[in-house]
Amino acid sequence: MYRAPIDEIAFTLKNVCGLEELQKHEAHSELGDDLVSAILTEAGRFAAEEIAPLNSVADKHGTPFSNGAVTTPPGWKELYHRWIEGGWNGLSANPDFGGQGLPVMLSAAALEMWNSGSMAFAIGPTLTIGAVEALEKHATDELKAKYLEKLVSGEWMGTMNLTEPQAGSDLNALKAKAIPNGDGTYRISGQKIFITYGEHDMTDNIVHLVLARLPDAPAGTRGISLFLVPKLFVNDDGTLGEHNDVRCAGVEHKLGIHGSPTCTMVFGDDGGATGWLIGEENRGLACMFTMMNNARLAVGIQGLGVAERAYQQALAYALDRKQGRAPGEKGEGMSAIAHHPDIKRTLLAMRSRTQVARAICYACAHAIDMSHVAETAEDRKFWSDRAGLLTPLAKAIPTDFGVEVASMGVQIHGGMGYVEETGAAQHLRDSRIATIYEGTNGIQSIDLVMRKLPLSNGEHIDGFISELRQIADEVAASNRPEFGATADRLHAAIEELERVTSWMKAAQAEGCVAEALAGATPYLRLAGLTLGGVLLAKGALRSGTENAAASKDRTLLARSFAETSLYETIALGADVTSSAGSILSLDPEALAS
Amino acid sequence: MYRAPIDEIAFTLKNVCGLEELQKHEAHSELGDDLVSAILTEAGRFAAEEIAPLNSVADKHGTPFSNGAVTTPPGWKELYHRWIEGGWNGLSANPDFGGQGLPVMLSAAALEMWNSGSMAFAIGPTLTIGAVEALEKHATDELKAKYLEKLVSGEWMGTMNLTEPQAGSDLNALKAKAIPNGDGTYRISGQKIFITYGEHDMTDNIVHLVLARLPDAPAGTRGISLFLVPKLFVNDDGTLGEHNDVRCAGVEHKLGIHGSPTCTMVFGDDGGATGWLIGEENRGLACMFTMMNNARLAVGIQGLGVAERAYQQALAYALDRKQGRAPGEKGEGMSAIAHHPDIKRTLLAMRSRTQVARAICYACAHAIDMSHVAETAEDRKFWSDRAGLLTPLAKAIPTDFGVEVASMGVQIHGGMGYVEETGAAQHLRDSRIATIYEGTNGIQSIDLVMRKLPLSNGEHIDGFISELRQIADEVAASNRPEFGATADRLHAAIEELERVTSWMKAAQAEGCVAEALAGATPYLRLAGLTLGGVLLAKGALRSGTENAAASKDRTLLARSFAETSLYETIALGADVTSSAGSILSLDPEALAS
Repeated sequence: MYRAPIDEIAFTLKNVCGLEELQKHEAHSELGDDLVSAILTEAGRFAAEEIAPLNSVADKHGTPFSNGAVTTPPGWKELYHRWIEGGWNGLSANPDFGGQGLPVMLSAAALEMWNSGSMAFAIGPTLTIGAVEALEKHATDELKAKYLEKLVSGEWMGTMNLTEPQAGSDLNALKAKAIPNGDGTYRISGQKIFITYGEHDMTDNIVHLVLARLPDAPAGTRGISLFLVPKLFVNDDGTLGEHNDVRCAGVEHKLGIHGSPTCTMVFGDDGGATGWLIGEENRGLACMFTMMNNARLAVGIQGLGVAERAYQQALAYALDRKQGRAPGEKGEGMSAIAHHPDIKRTLLAMRSRTQVARAICYACAHAIDMSHVAETAEDRKFWSDRAGLLTPLAKAIPTDFGVEVASMGVQIHGGMGYVEETGAAQHLRDSRIATIYEGTNGIQSIDLVMRKLPLSNGEHIDGFISELRQIADEVAASNRPEFGATADRLHAAIEELERVTSWMKAAQAEGCVAEALAGATPYLRLAGLTLGGVLLAKGALRSGTENAAASKDRTLLARSFAETSLYETIALGADVTSSAGSILSLDPEALAS
Repeated sequence: MYRAPIDEIAFTLKNVCGLEELQKHEAHSELGDDLVSAILTEAGRFAAEEIAPLNSVADKHGTPFSNGAVTTPPGWKELYHRWIEGGWNGLSANPDFGGQGLPVMLSAAALEMWNSGSMAFAIGPTLTIGAVEALEKHATDELKAKYLEKLVSGEWMGTMNLTEPQAGSDLNALKAKAIPNGDGTYRISGQKIFITYGEHDMTDNIVHLVLARLPDAPAGTRGISLFLVPKLFVNDDGTLGEHNDVRCAGVEHKLGIHGSPTCTMVFGDDGGATGWLIGEENRGLACMFTMMNNARLAVGIQGLGVAERAYQQALAYALDRKQGRAPGEKGEGMSAIAHHPDIKRTLLAMRSRTQVARAICYACAHAIDMSHVAETAEDRKFWSDRAGLLTPLAKAIPTDFGVEVASMGVQIHGGMGYVEETGAAQHLRDSRIATIYEGTNGIQSIDLVMRKLPLSNGEHIDGFISELRQIADEVAASNRPEFGATADRLHAAIEELERVTSWMKAAQAEGCVAEALAGATPYLRLAGLTLGGVLLAKGALRSGTENAAASKDRTLLARSFAETSLYETIALGADVTSSAGSILSLDPEALAS
């Protein structure tokens, strides 16, 4: 079973990722340590006691589809209603519409725990919150008045309808149509696929946000507009009216997150669905980008949440399962496998990757929060750059680690890991989508290299690397023997990151785009591992002396990560700067012959 | 669909892994190039046309269990009978019992293709062949006469019954009992789990090989004996008699290989199953070890087979799927994603890992074959050492790569990779068991470090490394610019392997067993990547000039592997020699508090 790691979450928020900085800010003056602690404790309780037990139930049941209707797993609807009654849906939403206005950091921490409880459950509200953000920033007051409060409370859920069969990563190819009705509304038609919680029985209404093209709209992404298409029309008094012309045509049979219905949605099969424009015509993509950063972070947090749960389960199994005799073990009989050196290595790798994922996600949330409260244009620019830089890292590293940690969890279980009843395999199946949706991790690496390195004329990344070096210097200066080779490994990784960053910038400056793209994936991992190593070390440095066990644990985690995984940075850097020639010379058509 | 890569398989057998050496040997004088080609072609045809189309059918259907009976997927039984009618079951078995006596290399190549067709199908006969080997080497003439011919032909299938709930990796804890009946037979009782094809409807009889303990047997593995327990008794005239006291109590619900029934077998619930001793009392483990090497190689080949199929599928998808615009692309519209640099990187990684897996498996098969035909004690010792050294590598590297390649295949498919209908996810699910069974890959690394490095006083591994260096020298001497940095990368990897091997030997010599074990997993990967890089380069060197496209392709493969993956060897080596301190200081009990 899942136990919410409240202490480690609170410590990471405050001492590693800057929540204290935020608490000092006027906009969050009410956010004392007691309130933070109360929120985390109650969220953790709900995740562990209410959500977690339904995770495997939902996996087995799935979301059967029949005659346009989707049945969610047993207990799912009741769980959702207890969850929204707790006020959890509006944690970071605007208080004007019933939200609690808390920092993204806090909602990120809660979201980690919901995802540990069940990723298939947590993803539904994540989509609703995306819809809330888009409406808050871009919708008319009329639409806001009609929809926002019920989406913030969770009485209704929201969806995002982007993907079409021919338009996935590339929205240029989008074909769904919107034709003005002349009364301010639009007639929407087209098919959308992979729509998470597109249809279900959990709420009375579902609010679809749909990307579509107006007649004569420019080609490409500059001709895409965003529309609100409710499942049921909403009368002026707030009551529900007739069914809009939108229906679910089927659900996907997926590798994992079986509790989350992934729907094919058909709009306008019977004359046209009625939609309302959000933002300006042909500016739909800008509206989408509003929520893209938070959505990418939310997916990173899915990787984190599943990693934490998989780690806890593997640790419990490794402490319980006895096989063989560990070297140096005293006493009689077999040892718990956790005592075998190779399993210790695996447990440390799982734990350190999970904590790295956490720290990167929270650091990204912190940057988003700081960009909201910053008072000067300079500060806003800095924190907006920082959020931009950290977003691809916070999406890709935790999701890659989520799969890696879940797979290690299966391995620790041995044959029992391959049998579905233990649940170890479910974590692997569930986590596997997170490296794909909301922009594949390959696309994250392209975003990092092509859009984020150039921020502030390339100076933002340089400043970021300097900040990393300060922590490495601090580790070196601490002279604590328990750190082992941590400072050296960090310095080496940071130097490599600096060298390869210069190479990337030079490649782009010289117009060698293909060369830069060929190394984008290892570059992202190099940056993520280096940042991760630094954040683990920062946790060890900031542990203080009041809890000696926690301090020792964090130091060991930082050290073991530095002395195993950080070596990978050197390999990754060498790869980036030397492999473009061979990679680009591949003629893929020739392989098929 | 799957296309058998006959040319690459034949080339790897002959020019990379030493089939030519074997063909020159008297024992295989009949094995001309034409025969090799005919066997591979027909095996490939069968795998592609007959087995491959049933792979997803079997995945969806599974093996339902009811009242002790297991129903195999539709078409499975007929497929099996066509397969044994082709004589494929006895490919490398003794001609005295109807086998074809071909080298293990040939059966390995065929097995690769069966596994590409369907791993769930191919695993059944693999177990039968294990039973054949154990009987051939250790059974009485009477047992051989009664069982061997029908197992070699495939008319009956065989199983291996080792695992019990408390005894998986550690057979010391085995509890199944065998009590002498006084007439030369034994009364067997106990429960076995994870028994592959333990019960099914494909053959009239099933021959179970069962590990059990005699009364008063010594504790531990020195008190284990091996028994033959037929499902149906066999009369002296070869006809089938009554049902033995053995039944299937259930099948597992697994992550993958759904077409392969994984059974819980109960022996002796109704008074005792009758069994016949194989080999000597209390020497059952030695009998098991007879087939262990081949079984481990066979599992490595599963990883290889799935990797090849996943690669082919991903390549086809990447050439077909159009999204975005690749840099430098001419013409209008979107590019096939195979033209994007990041996807080129992925395709090369998939292809090179698959070819490395192939070459390592075939090299291991070659060593086994050479140990069979060697004429001097010295040669026998050398090739037996070599087979021993390569076996953990041939089990672990191809199975790790199988999962990695299948996972990359899912990623290339994007959202479609997560939807079961494309089949990309099935490869990931199927391949995931191969790193676990037949000794987890962690256990393979321990075997490599603790049992294989010390072979011939530690000199065998030194000679092996010298052989690797000769190929690297040859690459350097070739002066072919298309090799890029291949020679340098190979030399660096080999040097690191040499350094770390010395460290491992020294650790063991000094009694630092825990330290050696803490680094065993990265050591195995270091050795495997280095060997893999060398074998790819050898393929490029031996390509000759008659097929310029193939030669260019192999050189690019060797080069891209050297310039991306071989850097990892430096990271792995540093990890092995510096991380034991932090890993061993972990107190896993403290983590749970």
